Amino acid sequence: MAILRQPFNTHLNLGNGVLVPEGVKVVRHLSDMKDMYQDQDAVQHLLKDGDPLIYVVYNVEVPEEAGELQHCTSIVYPGRVGNEFFMTKGHFHSRAGTAEIYLTLRGRGILLMQAQDGRTATLDMFPGSVSYILPYWAHRSINVGPEPLVFFAVYPGDAGHNYGVIEEKGFAKMVLAQDDAPVVVDNPRYACRRT
Amino acid sequence: MAILRQPFNTHLNLGNGVLVPEGVKVVRHLSDMKDMYQDQDAVQHLLKDGDPLIYVVYNVEVPEEAGELQHCTSIVYPGRVGNEFFMTKGHFHSRAGTAEIYLTLRGRGILLMQAQDGRTATLDMFPGSVSYILPYWAHRSINVGPEPLVFFAVYPGDAGHNYGVIEEKGFAKMVLAQDDAPVVVDNPRYACRRT
Repeated sequence: MAILRQPFNTHLNLGNGVLVPEGVKVVRHLSDMKDMYQDQDAVQHLLKDGDPLIYVVYNVEVPEEAGELQHCTSIVYPGRVGNEFFMTKGHFHSRAGTAEIYLTLRGRGILLMQAQDGRTATLDMFPGSVSYILPYWAHRSINVGPEPLVFFAVYPGDAGHNYGVIEEKGFAKMVLAQDDAPVVVDNPRYACRRT
Repeated sequence: MAILRQPFNTHLNLGNGVLVPEGVKVVRHLSDMKDMYQDQDAVQHLLKDGDPLIYVVYNVEVPEEAGELQHCTSIVYPGRVGNEFFMTKGHFHSRAGTAEIYLTLRGRGILLMQAQDGRTATLDMFPGSVSYILPYWAHRSINVGPEPLVFFAVYPGDAGHNYGVIEEKGFAKMVLAQDDAPVVVDNPRYACRRT
């Protein structure tokens, strides 16, 4: 017998981003994305002292189908690898022509995006910023402040995630701390295949 | 020459729901939905004293296309028509098989939903509630508290709005105040064509 679905609530803590129930929780430590940071000496140094938690995503479970809406909260912790701020891995959508919306609830970040045609763009993330990520743009969130960066995201049910392009080529830009302030600079390793 | 689109931010005031820029603002007074309330004597009485503002929606302008994401904030003001709480008109989506997400930021409400097969459901709305409206379910928001009910909504770009079914038939349930507390009761006028 088919079970009839019912509308449902999830409870989002607007202060710290935690969802209850927490759904599918994704936890990324530095070791899960160590090749993505520029300063590999800093990576090795940090990994010797432990394996810092970079970010957590709470995904509400929804069918991966057209017409549905995936939604999640992400918490990117404050910190740096060398002078590069903690960030998410970043990805295109598998169905690349799908948008995404980020509503930032806490902290301060930079949303770095890159179109399939190579154009890049950044948007400031701050409590109340509603960022519209266009279809066909990869996206990465970077915590540039002293507290956790917390945002609520919504994207089409069948969008999926394509991490491969970014894992292989990176983004053309990166966000570094200069005198503690974030600056967006060219990524010297862009499009160089990782060894 | 085609103008290349750029990702963009909108600024949402998390306290009162106002979006800047405000986009396409929809303003509904009692006169815009007077047939939807049960107590027509109360409607006439209120209209004599003015035309109360029931709710406002700020819609970010996004192409009405698959892969895009419509998003808006709604502010439903506190008040009653007789003993029936102020509410939105409610609608199905034109492409009925599309979901919607409501993140409540302020106030207290009841989200009333009705499937195409006639089933009804309600969810409590409160700060931090993330309500998942299933595809094929009509939805209406009812402010059952003393302050504005504010929520942020996201739905597929090509979902559209179908108000006609609800305008003609209403919802099978309604939310009334009994000793100031909200109760969900059958709508005695359900499916009776409005005169």
